[in-house]
Amino acid sequence: MPILSNRAQAMPASPIRKLVPFAEQAKRDGKHVYHLNIGQPDIETPDVMLNALKNMDMKVVEYSHSAGIESYRKKLVKYYADNDIHVDYTDIMVTTGGSEALEFAVMCSLDDGDEIIIPEPFYANYNGMVIEAGAKVVSIRSTIDTGFALPAIEEFEKVITSKTKAIIICNPSNPTGYLYTKEEIEQLRDVALKHNLFIIVDEVYREFCYDNKTHHSIMEYDELKDHAILIDSISKRYSACGARIGTLVSRNNSFMDAALKLAQARLSPPSFGQLAAEAALDVKPEYFEKVKTEYTARRDFLVDALNRIEGVICPKPSGAFYCFVQLPVDDADTFCQWILESFDYENQTVMMAPAS
Amino acid sequence: MPILSNRAQAMPASPIRKLVPFAEQAKRDGKHVYHLNIGQPDIETPDVMLNALKNMDMKVVEYSHSAGIESYRKKLVKYYADNDIHVDYTDIMVTTGGSEALEFAVMCSLDDGDEIIIPEPFYANYNGMVIEAGAKVVSIRSTIDTGFALPAIEEFEKVITSKTKAIIICNPSNPTGYLYTKEEIEQLRDVALKHNLFIIVDEVYREFCYDNKTHHSIMEYDELKDHAILIDSISKRYSACGARIGTLVSRNNSFMDAALKLAQARLSPPSFGQLAAEAALDVKPEYFEKVKTEYTARRDFLVDALNRIEGVICPKPSGAFYCFVQLPVDDADTFCQWILESFDYENQTVMMAPAS
Repeated sequence: MPILSNRAQAMPASPIRKLVPFAEQAKRDGKHVYHLNIGQPDIETPDVMLNALKNMDMKVVEYSHSAGIESYRKKLVKYYADNDIHVDYTDIMVTTGGSEALEFAVMCSLDDGDEIIIPEPFYANYNGMVIEAGAKVVSIRSTIDTGFALPAIEEFEKVITSKTKAIIICNPSNPTGYLYTKEEIEQLRDVALKHNLFIIVDEVYREFCYDNKTHHSIMEYDELKDHAILIDSISKRYSACGARIGTLVSRNNSFMDAALKLAQARLSPPSFGQLAAEAALDVKPEYFEKVKTEYTARRDFLVDALNRIEGVICPKPSGAFYCFVQLPVDDADTFCQWILESFDYENQTVMMAPAS
Repeated sequence: MPILSNRAQAMPASPIRKLVPFAEQAKRDGKHVYHLNIGQPDIETPDVMLNALKNMDMKVVEYSHSAGIESYRKKLVKYYADNDIHVDYTDIMVTTGGSEALEFAVMCSLDDGDEIIIPEPFYANYNGMVIEAGAKVVSIRSTIDTGFALPAIEEFEKVITSKTKAIIICNPSNPTGYLYTKEEIEQLRDVALKHNLFIIVDEVYREFCYDNKTHHSIMEYDELKDHAILIDSISKRYSACGARIGTLVSRNNSFMDAALKLAQARLSPPSFGQLAAEAALDVKPEYFEKVKTEYTARRDFLVDALNRIEGVICPKPSGAFYCFVQLPVDDADTFCQWILESFDYENQTVMMAPAS
């Protein structure tokens, strides 16, 4: 048998892989399983997006430009400006989901053997993408007692080597729900400038900030023109994960030129998804208010109920739609399996992602 | 400024990059430019595909399974069986275009510094994908006097080293239109088995074989169970390039397990495109007969007319929809620029891809 590449052999399995058979068995046993293990919103996709496809007048489903449909990119300039991100349409590339934006960012910044710093806990697929590039994640710990605030900048300094090429954070964070403060973003800015690192920020949950807190984008700093890379996606914003439309945004022209070459090698992002995504820019602010009200109510209910249980610690997230919970159990994997296998409440149970 | 990765710096620019401004100027000058430089069919996408989206009843645009929608994968089993390719649905992964199937194949077979053999002339993006993996294309020449038949197997043997991990061909070929014979496929089979290499075959033009010639798939050989990797796509088959739906097919379970990990890292292929692609399986054989009749007529007209010009050599392609032409000019790049810039016939001209 031919030998698989080292990178293929090193690719991590999905962290919830072992739980899937138990979830399937629970369903066969007639239980309703709530999938809290994945960021798949149940909020309905706005009609205006689906109608863009239902009413399309297309004879040939053509490739779009490799950087995305120009009219969509131009409209995104206004969307970003409304969010204090001032870029030209040439600074914006439409990608196949935020995942591909991340892939391009990683591939353009890391070579075999390079390192990227990520505060943990972090979104598991960051690791997969970095391993695909033959590179290595160097993690530094954030802790539940601070609600997963940014680790002290000295912790970053300690692990920076000549192989370090970039830092990545998710703001607000999947999986912790932590919303980074302006001061923290500026600490990251300073360390990126000092060590000449790319600072890649995944801001796909930008709209989901609660308690009147403000999101601060990495793109707000002119001095980070060449360092800041924004990863974005419509997946969570408009409950449209399956459309597979994201964006890669940077004012670093050399970086964007290189990313375009990767984009050309895969031809174009999906045309149908782009039609829906362009239509989504007509979604009114009231939509987000309604969605945020719903998510806030769910958060408050869940966090309050969890924290009433003795031994449970659940910081109240200020953003995104995840809760990171410390439970009084010996082993999170075993507990997540048990709750699928042996527990139900009125024939319902939950699938969670163990953080181990 | 942070330094781009070596792979990003090494990524090749699009081969038609320099011609784009001349094509744009020609259009501004009022010329109609026929884009013969790209495999973007002008044949209409079958209605059944577009209707699948126009009539969809979807409330939330969800992620699909990372390997694609199960019902689609199961229906593909019959499509492949009808084409003498006998696989289980677990041997089939739905990808974001044939491009992603290729990316997964390359990433799972090649590490930094590895080599892959490709007969040239070859589809330019193979090179981009291989460079993205940090690996290297080793090309061996096929020539116009044989119509771009497979080079002698000794030519492969000469360049195989301990770093060689795979061979890739496109059958029928983009850009030569050459349809490999059963004997040639079996020569490739033997060399892959002898040297324990992956044999990756891009068969996206399977349906477009002319003059009653038969396509022979790399998947027809049981002895290649662990070596054969099929790259496929609906883009050309149904004139649906922008749907971005392809498939990666292999009976090598370890390979497919590794590819699934890459697939999970990017979550899922596009849901809208999959809906259209599943509907495409209801397209009747008459559709392909009509399309083939059209492509055959275009081929015959073009090839006959070209070969009537003194000094022009244009082999008649047996498959796909490309012509590879030797012209009596000193420099193909200059000629392709000139025909955009200074030539027109009734205010029309053509954009071609220089093969240099």
